[in-house]
Amino acid sequence: MGVNRTTVGSLVTDLASRGLVEERLPPDNPGPGRPSPLVGPQIDGLAVLAAEIATDSLAVAVVGLGGTIVVSQRVSRPRGFRPATDEIAQLGRLVRGCMAEVGADQRFFAAGISIPGLVRRPDGFVRLAPNLGWRDLPLADLVSQELGLDMPVLVGNDADLAALAEHTRGAGVGQADFICLWGEAGIGAGIIAGGRQLAGRDGYAGEVGHVTVNPDGRPCRCGSRGCWETEVGEEALLRGEGEALGREWTCMDSLLQAAAEGAPAATATLDRAGRWLGIGIAGLIDIFNPGALALGGVYARLYPYVRSAILAEVARRTVGTSQGPVDIGPVVLGDDGALLGAAELAFAPAIEDPTAVPRREARQPRPQPARTAVGRHTAAQQQGGEAEAQRTA
Amino acid sequence: MGVNRTTVGSLVTDLASRGLVEERLPPDNPGPGRPSPLVGPQIDGLAVLAAEIATDSLAVAVVGLGGTIVVSQRVSRPRGFRPATDEIAQLGRLVRGCMAEVGADQRFFAAGISIPGLVRRPDGFVRLAPNLGWRDLPLADLVSQELGLDMPVLVGNDADLAALAEHTRGAGVGQADFICLWGEAGIGAGIIAGGRQLAGRDGYAGEVGHVTVNPDGRPCRCGSRGCWETEVGEEALLRGEGEALGREWTCMDSLLQAAAEGAPAATATLDRAGRWLGIGIAGLIDIFNPGALALGGVYARLYPYVRSAILAEVARRTVGTSQGPVDIGPVVLGDDGALLGAAELAFAPAIEDPTAVPRREARQPRPQPARTAVGRHTAAQQQGGEAEAQRTA
Repeated sequence: MGVNRTTVGSLVTDLASRGLVEERLPPDNPGPGRPSPLVGPQIDGLAVLAAEIATDSLAVAVVGLGGTIVVSQRVSRPRGFRPATDEIAQLGRLVRGCMAEVGADQRFFAAGISIPGLVRRPDGFVRLAPNLGWRDLPLADLVSQELGLDMPVLVGNDADLAALAEHTRGAGVGQADFICLWGEAGIGAGIIAGGRQLAGRDGYAGEVGHVTVNPDGRPCRCGSRGCWETEVGEEALLRGEGEALGREWTCMDSLLQAAAEGAPAATATLDRAGRWLGIGIAGLIDIFNPGALALGGVYARLYPYVRSAILAEVARRTVGTSQGPVDIGPVVLGDDGALLGAAELAFAPAIEDPTAVPRREARQPRPQPARTAVGRHTAAQQQGGEAEAQRTA
Repeated sequence: MGVNRTTVGSLVTDLASRGLVEERLPPDNPGPGRPSPLVGPQIDGLAVLAAEIATDSLAVAVVGLGGTIVVSQRVSRPRGFRPATDEIAQLGRLVRGCMAEVGADQRFFAAGISIPGLVRRPDGFVRLAPNLGWRDLPLADLVSQELGLDMPVLVGNDADLAALAEHTRGAGVGQADFICLWGEAGIGAGIIAGGRQLAGRDGYAGEVGHVTVNPDGRPCRCGSRGCWETEVGEEALLRGEGEALGREWTCMDSLLQAAAEGAPAATATLDRAGRWLGIGIAGLIDIFNPGALALGGVYARLYPYVRSAILAEVARRTVGTSQGPVDIGPVVLGDDGALLGAAELAFAPAIEDPTAVPRREARQPRPQPARTAVGRHTAAQQQGGEAEAQRTA
């Protein structure tokens, strides 16, 4: 980087005083002389609050720099309409629980919230979250009031945030052009194009769920017909197909169990799902020419059963001769992608401009917080400490 | 901009010495005192060569800064396979004709070429141009050899370049998120997302022509079925629909003539075209959330007949309640969009870093070149001189 040791030293000291980095001795001393210390994210330094309001659960986490989950909690929630006031109160209880866990001296930079809906990023206003039954809700303001904490609250779309997390430390690492397709009740896509998140004029880009894939297909509750979501959303999957049509599995678990047992009805349903997923994915590949595409949510669970049908449609329906292969597969961060993405969203201003983080007067050593972990975030924990750089830059 | 008059003056002098800008007196003197000169692009200063290899024509132009066409020529070419050697030789003859027109002291910075196909930008290698019958052709190198001129030759996809031109001085001005949909034998899209051209990993983004819109539709020569191009490309339009199916208009002119006379067969064909255009456009709007979408090529000519069908499908098939209206309409620069975009491509390195343009030792006044203009480029000519800034910045 063309700066000398003294300059690096004073920069590191400044960043450390803001709770951003810390120095550690390298695990192995490679040669003679005093070893250069490694600089890495300060695990018990600055943190953010992350929350995910999902269609069937609510999660809250305290996340440190580098994507390390310090403490987290996820609770199941009923599907369908949930009054926003109840949900925000529940979120407040979870946040207070997590904060008690990490102790009063934990410093927070900001809070990030993931939501399955259309969000206006600048003020965290939710225009529409159909699967929660919310419309025109000033979510950032309401959560700020509930928490009563002195920190900015940022809100993002779940698929966008999952894409951000997978791009930073999951299936999209090193891919400047990356698509993260997320299936729950609906379908969303988070898209990284040329290294930047696709936003669109109003921040609503990536609403692939209501793209028409079957113009004369089933009616969709959006008023259209044959939307991608109508053909391969969770509801369509449970509805069954062929002999299974109308048999209706009660949940994804029962469908996947039947598929694992080789039940023809389940196999037919998943073959059909793979075909429709592949048709839509092929279109996205022609449009975006990505290096990788990851499937998350329900689709990550389906993936082993739909993989070959997806790849067959992609091979048949893309301008394939002219493109290198696209790395298609399930997400790496499991179900916590959107939650970790909400943390990335909250950290973003600090990464952009570290001087926006206030200094601590003097750093006092304190005991390590208890690391309670609920849910699957092993991958993130493992990778959290790896973004290290030798201090002799 | 926080710089004083002296600094501005020396910058302007430097840019003028490179043939980039010139000073002019303002047309109206708004007040007392010495009027501040206006700084604008130097019309007879630096120029580029622009060429468009289209499916049924070949065009060459000398273009000045600001998109002013100094001289241009377009010749018709037969449709279908055209040997690349013949085409490049013809292009060479057109270039030499244009260069003779502008005189030997015209300075050129670079050449830009538009082609209806998949292009690898860094080395101007054409991977596939199906409607010309070309594959794996080092076009930039071959044109360089043919012209024997000491300037870089850059190659781009026609829809990408038309989008660039429309974004710079056409239907996409001021739109950070803009789609230019181009219909000829095939369909291509040039996409501006967040103010930057969407490229994809290999530069092939925007290949919307083979996105599936009708999974069980007609077979496409690409091996798939129901591609957008198969439903609403030029060939599909001339094939007719309903009563007109198989009647086959001989060319777009005869179809549009029949439509203008209100012939039911033509009307049915164009209604169908509008429906399929609308279905695909609605998908692009959900995916990109653009501020504007412009239709070019054949679709600009069809537009008056398909407008209402497009808007009806867009209203029905987008997540409309959550988005502001999208400005949908024909392109502004007519058929010269790709040619003007090729000029933008050639100028881009000079705009990015003006010091890349060599200085002239001393600028000698010379007679204005004759401005021969073939084809429709009035809009560009009118707008060419308007990108001016008051020198007292």
